[in-house]
Amino acid sequence: MGRVTERRKVIRIRDGAVSTRPDTLVAEEPLEIRLNGKPLAITMRTPGDDFALAAGFLVSEGVLAEQDDLQNIVYCAGATVDGSNSYNVVDVRTAPGVRIPDITLERNVYTTSSCGLCGKASLDAVRTTTRWPIADTPPVRVEPELLASLPDRLRAAQRVFDRTGGLHAAALFTEDGELVDIREDVGRHNAVDKLVGRALQQGNLPLSRTLLLVSGRASFELAQKAVMAGIPVLAAVSAPSSLAVDLAAETGLTLVGFLRGSSMNVYAGEHRIALRTAAAQA
Amino acid sequence: MGRVTERRKVIRIRDGAVSTRPDTLVAEEPLEIRLNGKPLAITMRTPGDDFALAAGFLVSEGVLAEQDDLQNIVYCAGATVDGSNSYNVVDVRTAPGVRIPDITLERNVYTTSSCGLCGKASLDAVRTTTRWPIADTPPVRVEPELLASLPDRLRAAQRVFDRTGGLHAAALFTEDGELVDIREDVGRHNAVDKLVGRALQQGNLPLSRTLLLVSGRASFELAQKAVMAGIPVLAAVSAPSSLAVDLAAETGLTLVGFLRGSSMNVYAGEHRIALRTAAAQA
Repeated sequence: MGRVTERRKVIRIRDGAVSTRPDTLVAEEPLEIRLNGKPLAITMRTPGDDFALAAGFLVSEGVLAEQDDLQNIVYCAGATVDGSNSYNVVDVRTAPGVRIPDITLERNVYTTSSCGLCGKASLDAVRTTTRWPIADTPPVRVEPELLASLPDRLRAAQRVFDRTGGLHAAALFTEDGELVDIREDVGRHNAVDKLVGRALQQGNLPLSRTLLLVSGRASFELAQKAVMAGIPVLAAVSAPSSLAVDLAAETGLTLVGFLRGSSMNVYAGEHRIALRTAAAQA
Repeated sequence: MGRVTERRKVIRIRDGAVSTRPDTLVAEEPLEIRLNGKPLAITMRTPGDDFALAAGFLVSEGVLAEQDDLQNIVYCAGATVDGSNSYNVVDVRTAPGVRIPDITLERNVYTTSSCGLCGKASLDAVRTTTRWPIADTPPVRVEPELLASLPDRLRAAQRVFDRTGGLHAAALFTEDGELVDIREDVGRHNAVDKLVGRALQQGNLPLSRTLLLVSGRASFELAQKAVMAGIPVLAAVSAPSSLAVDLAAETGLTLVGFLRGSSMNVYAGEHRIALRTAAAQA
């Protein structure tokens, strides 16, 4: 895992004083994901957990939904002149019988004849594509106090952030607040893909009794990843987008934003949050 | 610009008290960018400045480099069943004679036969593709105090962030610290594309006497966008990645990170920062 960070010389300026010292940076390298030998996507990622990243990416794309869908994942050797392996190209081979959906130009975006290209079409596509509808998951109910405790535990578990400040983190917790797994990456979508891919590799999809916490904002893309993995609760430290909220409302996902201290906003799926019955409704 | 934000109902929890109220969210919608009628890319963006976004994206891709390269940009009508316009598809038409480079599966990533897919190949591609090499730009020299003043001015100029907390911001300043332009978007790369595209539309490329400030981290992609637009100084409030630093070092870009209060780190191109000659070198 030495490639997760890299060292570079940096000039520090602090209140006018100048000094030169080595600094630790988060590593960023391209990764090409191939599906049954065919190039599918390239993502800029922090090296490490590459197989999990590829598997999780394909869960989000609707290609993989459980462990048996996956035959194996390998690094592609021989892509260079001297036949060496750059460890930046992985090939995911699906099990016989797995149907490969038509994957468009860029991931996560769908068009329909009714609206051309619009947010509603994107929502419909996720809702109809997921193999793990959240409405079918067993009831999960979470205390706000438990949710409020998660960001501190995420930060305590982050290994690289303190050294580089350059990583997004994503963590899975059980409904009782136990940390299941945490991943960090220069791209927030990659961190979630790594979590979901690892779960698929271990036969743990759907993640129907877990909470997903992300260190930043909740975009449509992250909400989609939660829905495709059957995760019923997505909590973000920062703001959600309009399309993330719409997707949550449409699929039954519980979406919590601005999770800071003892405060939070619940944007959808509030039936999974144990709200005080005595509380006033303003 | 009403679509920049949207209103949704939210349940707020503050120290155990529960209330329901309307909340303002940053809008997120897909945008398809076509080049001379051919679909090229889809990005999730905050609606608004779509033509600038498309133009700036094509500067980053090496398709456009100056105002004369652009013939016009239009919204594509008739993409829907009823022939109405969803304002989510734009077509960029290049001027006669503009050479269209071979654009790969996903933007910003390049392969070479020498290393297959690797960071070095990505650096080389940007260095050899840009029409505005930073080494050719007139000398720019910036006081650290001026740089230190920019984040506060960025926040003061941000219009939507205070209401939603969900937007990334990017701003261009003159070398004297005067605000030239600011753009906000749910995606940080879109905010920079909107700045660069607007400059191209106004005939202001290369941006060789400007400083680019971004509200978050400095990834390879953002450093690439600065280089392709001929911007000599990129400053980020948060951390850079290893590949962003490598690209800056290779192209002569000045890269400043962790710009907070009177502190900052200079990762490359320090000859443009007016460091105190009396300062000790630790």
